[in-house]
Formats: sequence, C-alpha cells, structure tokens
Amino acid sequence: MTAAPDGGAQHPAGAGPTNSLVDVAGIRVGHHTREEPGWLTGVTVVVAPAGGAVAGVDVRGGGPGTRETDLLDPRNLVDRVDAVVLGGGSAFGLAAADGVMDALAADGRGWPMADPPDATRVVPIVPAAILFDLGRGGSWANRPRAEDGRAAYAAATDAVAQGSVGAGTGAKAGGLRGGVGSASVVLPSGATVAALVVVNAVGSAVDLETGLPYAVRLGLPGELGHVRAPSQADLAAAQARSLAAVEAGEAAVPGLATTIGVIATDATLTKAQCQKMAGVGHDGLARAVRPVHTLFDGDTLFALATGSGPSSDPVEQTMVMEAGADCVARAVVHAMLAATSVDRTADGGVALRSWSDAFPSALT
Amino acid sequence: MTAAPDGGAQHPAGAGPTNSLVDVAGIRVGHHTREEPGWLTGVTVVVAPAGGAVAGVDVRGGGPGTRETDLLDPRNLVDRVDAVVLGGGSAFGLAAADGVMDALAADGRGWPMADPPDATRVVPIVPAAILFDLGRGGSWANRPRAEDGRAAYAAATDAVAQGSVGAGTGAKAGGLRGGVGSASVVLPSGATVAALVVVNAVGSAVDLETGLPYAVRLGLPGELGHVRAPSQADLAAAQARSLAAVEAGEAAVPGLATTIGVIATDATLTKAQCQKMAGVGHDGLARAVRPVHTLFDGDTLFALATGSGPSSDPVEQTMVMEAGADCVARAVVHAMLAATSVDRTADGGVALRSWSDAFPSALT
Repeated sequence: MTAAPDGGAQHPAGAGPTNSLVDVAGIRVGHHTREEPGWLTGVTVVVAPAGGAVAGVDVRGGGPGTRETDLLDPRNLVDRVDAVVLGGGSAFGLAAADGVMDALAADGRGWPMADPPDATRVVPIVPAAILFDLGRGGSWANRPRAEDGRAAYAAATDAVAQGSVGAGTGAKAGGLRGGVGSASVVLPSGATVAALVVVNAVGSAVDLETGLPYAVRLGLPGELGHVRAPSQADLAAAQARSLAAVEAGEAAVPGLATTIGVIATDATLTKAQCQKMAGVGHDGLARAVRPVHTLFDGDTLFALATGSGPSSDPVEQTMVMEAGADCVARAVVHAMLAATSVDRTADGGVALRSWSDAFPSALT
Repeated sequence: MTAAPDGGAQHPAGAGPTNSLVDVAGIRVGHHTREEPGWLTGVTVVVAPAGGAVAGVDVRGGGPGTRETDLLDPRNLVDRVDAVVLGGGSAFGLAAADGVMDALAADGRGWPMADPPDATRVVPIVPAAILFDLGRGGSWANRPRAEDGRAAYAAATDAVAQGSVGAGTGAKAGGLRGGVGSASVVLPSGATVAALVVVNAVGSAVDLETGLPYAVRLGLPGELGHVRAPSQADLAAAQARSLAAVEAGEAAVPGLATTIGVIATDATLTKAQCQKMAGVGHDGLARAVRPVHTLFDGDTLFALATGSGPSSDPVEQTMVMEAGADCVARAVVHAMLAATSVDRTADGGVALRSWSDAFPSALT
C-alpha cells in the first residue's frame, strides 16, 4: 500500500482536493486487503452518500462476473444504489456483496420496501463486479467472502489508498502488477468528476516502446510531471522480460483478467445518462490499456451521480462524461505507479513486478 | 409440498415421463425449504448435466435481482453454466449462489481455468435470480443464505416437487399463494422441452371472471382435465375477497414481486439461441399471468440447452422455443394448483390462500 502516487505534491489546479473518488462529496471508499501467506486478493467498496446515488453500468469485457447489473437498466425501477463492490476472487468474490448488503441493512440503508418507510425493512442495492486473481497468492481457495466485504465497508473513509490494496491486491496488467488507482477533476462549472479503477488486464497499461503508461499524456498540468522517460537500460530489461514471458508461453493462458471501476460525479444525471457515462468511461480505458475489452477481460464500469452539484445541460453532461473517461485513464496511470512488487512464488503463487521497480529511472 | 398436480394420473402423450424439468436428460432440481416459525422462503437449484449447459437469459421485469447474467450475453466468452439458482429473500437471497458455487467447486465442476484442466482450478458458473418474499413468514431478517443454496444443491434429484417448496415457499401471485410449477413436452422430432417457474407476481395467474388459471386452456390433452369451472359460490367468495383486499389498500404497496424460472431442452442451441428462447418464454408468462413484467416484478427466465437431443434447423428451433413458452405457461398453472394454504399472521407474517382452497369446487 502506498499513498497517492504524487505523494505530497500539490494537486494540479484542475483536480479535486484529494485527486481521487472521494472528491465527489459524500462518496467514501473502503478497502480490505488479504495479503497474508497464501493470499493475494481483497475487496474495495465504494459507498454512496446517504439516500444513495443514481447509477448506471456498462459491461464491455467478454468475461464479466457481475451482480445486480440488470436493475441498472434504465427501463427498470430502482434508480439508486447504496454501494458498489469491486472484488478479487473471480465469480466467487461476488460473495463480498453479501457482507456489504448485511452491513448496509444493519445501518438502515437500502431501498425502502415498507410504506411508510421503515429502516428495518430495506433492501440495500449493491451492484458488484469481480476480477480474476485466483491462485496468485498461492492457494486457489483463498478468495474474498462475505466477511471481507463487511470489513471493506467498515473501513470506508474519505481517503483513498491506492496501489496494491483492496480489490487490487492480486491484480496484474500485462507483465506488471496492477492495482487500485483514482483521479478527479473539477470542471469550470464547478462539477466534480472522479474515477476509481482496479487495473487487472490481459493487456498492458504500459507502452513497452517507451516504458511509460499509455495514458501518461492525459495527466493534468503538473499531475504526472515526476514521470519521465526511463533509461535505455530499464527499457531493454523490461522488453527482454516481456519477450521471455511470451516465449515461456505465459500469454497462452490469459485467464480471465478484468478491469473494474466506478466513475462518480456530483452533477445531476438520470439513470440512463449514468449508463451513458459508464460507456464513455470505457473510452478512457481504451486509451490507457491495450488490448482491452478482450474475451478474457470482464471490464465493467459503474457510474454514480450524487446530484449534489450543479445541474447540467447536454453540453455540460458531455463534458462530465468526457471528464469521467479522462479520470478513468488517469486512474489507470495512478494504479500502475502506486503498485508495489510482490513475490509469492515460494507459496506456489506468482511474482509481480511493479512499474516503479521495472522502471526506476522513470521516476524523478 | 405436494406431488405434481396431476398426481398419479397418466401423463399426456405429449409430455415427458415426469411432465417436469428433469425430463430433459441430465437436469436435476433441488429445493431447500425454510418454513419453520418466522420463515417462509427457500431456494431452488437447477443443476446442469456434467460439463454444463449452453445458456441464455432474458430479464423482462422492471425490478430484477440477478447475478452472473452479463456473462450470458452472447457476445461474451463463457457459454455454459453449471447451475441456475432461484431464490427467495429479495436481493439478499443472491447469497444462496455462493453456497452452490462452493459445492460445485468441491465437486470439481466449473469453468476450467488451468491448462491442462485441473478439477481443483475451476470457477463454477452459477447465474441466479431472486424473488421478493421478505417478511411473509414473520421476520424480515429470515432470508436464504449461502448454506441454504448448498442444501438445495445437495438435495438435487431427478424428481421435481412442486407447489409451496424451495424458492416458491414464500411466493404469492395476485391474492393467492404462488409456488413452484413445472411442465415438459416431447416434440415430434424427439426433442424434449421443459420449464420450471416460481410464480410470485403482482399480477394474477387466475382469471377472477372464471376462477380458472389463465393458461389452463394451454394444457396438453388430458393434462388439466381434472380442472373444471368452479361453483358460483366459490367464485363469488373469491371476487369478494379480492375486492376487500383492494379496498384495504393491499395493492397500494405491491413490493417487488417477480416470477423467475428456467426453460430447458435437449436440443442443440447456441448461446444466442438460448437468449432468444428465454425471450420467447416470457410470452408464455404473458399468457399465464396478468399483469406481468411490471416495474414491481423482476421477471427473469433462463434457458438451458444440453445438446444431447436431436440437432435442429430454424423451423425446429422455433418449435422448441414456442414449446418452451407453452411449458412456462403450463408450469404456472401447475404452480398454482400445487400450492397449499399457509397462515403466518400470528408470527407477524401473512396468510396466503391456495387456489385449491379458494376454488375447491374446481377440482374434480
């Protein structure tokens, strides 16, 4: 676990105070990390403000693992979610949402099912998506369960740890360790837009021609100024490792990878507009990961609109959606920069090198 | 719990041996019923043959609660499911799928994630849908959990109990008790088609003008011959109760109802054709329940094709799909006929009258 990748640096004028998802007022994020011996997985929960957030989803990967996404169809009744769960553990990890539902219900939060409303008669609305990380810590059986979801919910806070935490603990992107990244921006209208992604892809978030994350060019002024072209030695070493991995046939079993995430804004959007925002968000993923949306990725993005910010017209809504895509791309960069190396080969798991260890010369 | 509604009668020539879902070779069904004091809910699991079944889904209700439906999009990679979970408990009941996944994994069943395949490295594919029954047994907190799913899986057999069992335990349709129903048919080609539904609807499966289930006319020759027009006294009493319920405002809080089910065939269908079959299946629901697919129903049908039967061309596929719709409609009738009355008002729950108790004169 590390702090935000730009550490104590001043946030660029365009980003929100924390340059992360919680810059959208009322949103909280909780991680639960399972990295003890044999484990390399976890859960990340995005908790909506009291009363929930309007939400949408777009599933673009060919191997998704999801829960409660059908209710987000704009034709359907329920238009607010209480939380979104992102988990490791492949489809098994969907169990984490059970714990989050129970915890929300205990807090009296959920869709009101009684008239008049009664805090003991609610059904929490908790969509979820998972990523594949089974076996990376050493044991196939070590995957998130309901109690891990409950722990992530209990840990929810208005500070977002990034890197090798929560659902990003066992994440891998291309040949490097993936992880959790987040970013935000404040638009001229005053609307805040932000994203949190968990990068775990068949494809790579790093251009092996340059050694730099593909989306580094999308950084806000000053945001990624500490990242520079790596040395030829670092680059040659990384290219050699990549070639060796291909020759060893590692790419022949891509497994189900999956990048998952949440985009949020305080702008007022309808449920259908949130679905559109989630779809546009995948364009940010396309700019940051290559290849992406493969049959072996279950790439899924949720979009939340809290409505506490300024109202919007279609032009502003378009700016909000495009800003969401850029936040997704920047969040992918932050995830790669914040990840740390890990070696679980002694336990029968995997070794994952971080970008910062692969390209030490790239960080000034 | 009761046997199939036609009891020991000869099955009509057109139906399979059990006139239920398990007539599709290799399909098994397990119920776990929670009807102890304070409870009125349960889980029903449809287990695919070893190796799984090609599957699709169509969500037509406006308030669905689902899991693992996105992977069934025909564009996506995974094309076989190991089981389908139908549960009570509203969205909380999705936890039942966790127990089914664990049990399948323990049996070495699931999508192979290792190359070469390794029975310890599988991810069971277990889509699920739930219905709303919270509080009907008396306690809002009594809902299916992972262990209930595990128990239903352990109970899977090639005999299908119908009526007030499994996911149908807390079910209600219109003013009557809903439940589990099933039906099958063998087509001239030799293909078997069958359905299992759990009827729990805002609308009614019974025409209050006649007292008969809407879809009784779709019965195979001899199948529903024991059902006749009820007496004027029974009809008048039922109409009076319905009017009293409306006047008491019961219809003002419809809650989330939801009819869920599985259609299966041994014909060979692609994943996209299974999606189409699930969609056509909803036409059977439209013929059997009115209104249906409301914003307060999460009506969801899955379709499974085992491929062990005859191959098919588009004409035969159309017959298979239409037969699926008819099986859905007939299964709704069987559910209503097999349900039994229950009264949990002393526990703070509800009283649900069965069709057979409301219209005793209709059964010869």
